Amino acid sequence: MSKTTKKIVIIGASAAGLRCACRVKRLQPGWSVKVVEANEVFSYGACGMPYVLSGDIEELGVLRRTTYGSDRDAEYFETVKGVEVLAPWRASAIDPEAKTLIISDGSEDRVLEWDELVIATGASPHALPGQPDHERVRAFHVWDDVKPLKIGLMRGEIGEVAVIGAGLVGCEVAEAFASLWGADVTLIEAAPIPLPEILDPELGMAVARHLESQDVKVLTRCPVDRFEPDDEGVTVHAGGREIRADVAVVAVGVRPRVDLAREAGISLGPTGAIRVDEQLATSVPHIWAAGDCAEVRHVVTGGPAYTPLGSLANRQGRVLGTVLAGGDASFGPIAGAAAVKVFDLNVASVGCTAARLGADGQGVRSMWISAEDRAHYWPEARLILLGMVYDAATRRVLGVQGVGEEGEVAKRIDVAAQLILREATIEDFVDLEHAYAPPYAPALDPLTVLACAAQNELDGIEAESPLMDLSTVTILDVRIDEEREERPIEAGTVVEIEIGELRDRVDEVPDGPMIVVCAHGTRSAEAVRFLAGRGVQARYLGGGMSWRARAK
Amino acid sequence: MSKTTKKIVIIGASAAGLRCACRVKRLQPGWSVKVVEANEVFSYGACGMPYVLSGDIEELGVLRRTTYGSDRDAEYFETVKGVEVLAPWRASAIDPEAKTLIISDGSEDRVLEWDELVIATGASPHALPGQPDHERVRAFHVWDDVKPLKIGLMRGEIGEVAVIGAGLVGCEVAEAFASLWGADVTLIEAAPIPLPEILDPELGMAVARHLESQDVKVLTRCPVDRFEPDDEGVTVHAGGREIRADVAVVAVGVRPRVDLAREAGISLGPTGAIRVDEQLATSVPHIWAAGDCAEVRHVVTGGPAYTPLGSLANRQGRVLGTVLAGGDASFGPIAGAAAVKVFDLNVASVGCTAARLGADGQGVRSMWISAEDRAHYWPEARLILLGMVYDAATRRVLGVQGVGEEGEVAKRIDVAAQLILREATIEDFVDLEHAYAPPYAPALDPLTVLACAAQNELDGIEAESPLMDLSTVTILDVRIDEEREERPIEAGTVVEIEIGELRDRVDEVPDGPMIVVCAHGTRSAEAVRFLAGRGVQARYLGGGMSWRARAK
Repeated sequence: MSKTTKKIVIIGASAAGLRCACRVKRLQPGWSVKVVEANEVFSYGACGMPYVLSGDIEELGVLRRTTYGSDRDAEYFETVKGVEVLAPWRASAIDPEAKTLIISDGSEDRVLEWDELVIATGASPHALPGQPDHERVRAFHVWDDVKPLKIGLMRGEIGEVAVIGAGLVGCEVAEAFASLWGADVTLIEAAPIPLPEILDPELGMAVARHLESQDVKVLTRCPVDRFEPDDEGVTVHAGGREIRADVAVVAVGVRPRVDLAREAGISLGPTGAIRVDEQLATSVPHIWAAGDCAEVRHVVTGGPAYTPLGSLANRQGRVLGTVLAGGDASFGPIAGAAAVKVFDLNVASVGCTAARLGADGQGVRSMWISAEDRAHYWPEARLILLGMVYDAATRRVLGVQGVGEEGEVAKRIDVAAQLILREATIEDFVDLEHAYAPPYAPALDPLTVLACAAQNELDGIEAESPLMDLSTVTILDVRIDEEREERPIEAGTVVEIEIGELRDRVDEVPDGPMIVVCAHGTRSAEAVRFLAGRGVQARYLGGGMSWRARAK
Repeated sequence: MSKTTKKIVIIGASAAGLRCACRVKRLQPGWSVKVVEANEVFSYGACGMPYVLSGDIEELGVLRRTTYGSDRDAEYFETVKGVEVLAPWRASAIDPEAKTLIISDGSEDRVLEWDELVIATGASPHALPGQPDHERVRAFHVWDDVKPLKIGLMRGEIGEVAVIGAGLVGCEVAEAFASLWGADVTLIEAAPIPLPEILDPELGMAVARHLESQDVKVLTRCPVDRFEPDDEGVTVHAGGREIRADVAVVAVGVRPRVDLAREAGISLGPTGAIRVDEQLATSVPHIWAAGDCAEVRHVVTGGPAYTPLGSLANRQGRVLGTVLAGGDASFGPIAGAAAVKVFDLNVASVGCTAARLGADGQGVRSMWISAEDRAHYWPEARLILLGMVYDAATRRVLGVQGVGEEGEVAKRIDVAAQLILREATIEDFVDLEHAYAPPYAPALDPLTVLACAAQNELDGIEAESPLMDLSTVTILDVRIDEEREERPIEAGTVVEIEIGELRDRVDEVPDGPMIVVCAHGTRSAEAVRFLAGRGVQARYLGGGMSWRARAK
């Protein structure tokens, strides 16, 4: 590693910036490392803010404490990490030639000299066009956004809430208002489903149904037209409706904070974030970028992506710290793994959705299964819904999405992430090895079952979407009576032959084409194969009636 | 795929055999597929048996039912799968030349002709030398082993139990007797720790302590000398002690059932199991083997291994079914992922232990961390202990082991399995991507933290075993007062300087060498790096006092 003493200046004391600072200081204790931060309070777990609002976490301060209870303030970074944090100081201009940064605390300016400059300015909440600057129309992005809302809830002044945007944060905030506080929440989303960035409709609908079961009113395909705030509350005009609330929280995503970079002549990428290479170098020598202000490369599309996630920011910070200190490190493509808790649901996803890739049913295809997350005889086994997006020609897996209870979906997405990062095929998923024990997993992991279903589909055993309209088709129901009574098929022409009787009663099977239906999609897929051998054309309902019961 | 009609005969109707049979029949519905099974009851989830004994699962029958409640008996396989199961019929001789199999039901013999023969005879419980055939000394391997024990418990006739062998099954059985029934259980193990096949001592000791906290008496380094059963009970002589119990359950592993194969001239491998290639072909043409009677290749050692696991048997069955049907499939090397529930502990492991690889502190090294399994501020976050075995020269990760609560360890092991299968390095672990949300994971996954610690170790920041003797060394305790009070260091010369004061009070640091101690191993590692920069020789306590509190 380089031994010349260097001056490192980092703009932004959040995950990427601070981790980079600490890493440099660890590897090069003699170097000067300064972090410039505009806010008084920094280095807190912003992802925990919805749970402070809900009351799951007692108070905001918890989010900025270490595991052993120290506040992560300027003194902490100075004494424990040897990193100087200048806060609140705002960076106002970069001079790449002079290698200086002008910062201001509102009353005085300072000029910092640097040998290497890191831009870790993060992101700011996106505002809707015409969104008024009014206390009844709020963002949920930083520390200061939480308190007024929580106080409003505690005082009983907030009883009705409109949450705009059903993305990760929007869903978390909707839960926070509704769960403990019992607020009447309307979740307003322009897309046809919640979480459209990470889920396709088959899974997104399951999230919508679950939100509704928790008394959240979900309005999808409902773009916001305008806000009319007043002293008492706000009227949200969206999709031809008027939604009245005490407060509207706008959570329609974030945009990279790139003004400083742009003014310094640093190139942005097509996503609008700062373009960086694998060492996180920008287009200007000696200036680097990491975290929510920078672009990443997506392993599935091969192109640039903007995925502002705390976990990636953390990893980038460490990589950049190593690079700056003279070490060997790089930040490779990402698979876009994400998870979110929506009341009792664990939702997680990795790779790309079919919608994003423009699934055409030929090249890019989807498969769905419902499966128990543990041995099916284990008392705590729960049903999870899993979807896979794959390329029929190359057999490469392009995405996996899941919805279920507890953390058992995130587990499968974590496994899938490693495979997708390595450009794995369906066969690689079939071959995956997992730690099997009845309390933790079935003998065949749901991911393997999902991949086998995709493999079968490429052999001609084709699934239809769990959400398909069954009212106009001929249906062969191969379930047993108890299952049929529990979840009747709502419409259509239904012939009932249990899977166990199919071989004997094959003469009763109607002429194809037909849709075969069972509970999870397993028996019906078998029936389709059996019928195909007899020349009967059939497809099956992907994920079965269990999926449909949750998503339709 | 091949279109010639073939006769397939499979010996053994358990996971591998039946899954193979069903797969062949699905892909080649016109072929004859017969499965010969010695037992009346077959195709049940044997891994669930401990939970039937404990009462977590109501009755044994649940284990042989499908998710929709059908018994997996001969009729089920005939009608649903088109597979003929001959049971109870015992296979008694293979003639590879004539391509026949002689089977017997005790009164009559039959000769089955085959084009392809599959040996899926599974494993039998290993008996200790001189182990008596007596109702007070029992195995726990098949369906019939459960009922007498459960009846004995229900009638109050079994109150004291000696479980011989603290492997996966032994630990599960010990829990089953102790948890709901409150039996006095002594768990007797020849090795120094429980679960020696999958854990190194640092983790194994945590399991031992947890078993003890649940009132299981754990006797390690305690090989059984002999059993003295009588009408009232049994006296187990082991390691110089006499343990009196109502019944002794012997769970000292299984051996592949290979008599038929050996008599037919089929080669066995060095593990004593049947040697197969990647298509699961044996040394004799047209004879194949899968499941617990066959050898696998271990990705870490590169050599043969015997890992009788239901999950692998299942996958092998599917691969072999595809191969026999004329398709393209292979069964690659395994990483040996395993999980087990031990009361409230989730224990899981993948790859090789340091003990197995003969860790010498140079080539093969170990690292340990304790970490929260979710965001540390999430109310349900729990501490997990993770160990990594790696090769210092190649930086390849050779094994990962974990102990924690709930299923959060199995999750990390599933992720590690995919990486170890791909011969990943420490750097690959540092770079792993995970689905981050506070209720499911910290921003930096514990596996990443573990890998960073190993990376730091290779940079000279070295950890000592969490179990090291602290009584004779100089200790620098960088924790805060509350932590010191909660978990005092039991002995040694201790200098107390909080991590936040270390820079200012560096003059008070004693001369090295010393051991730096904190709660999880994070701050102490930082301190070691800081001190190294000042020429002070130090190492730190891997996993910190949190680990020690659970394992020492």
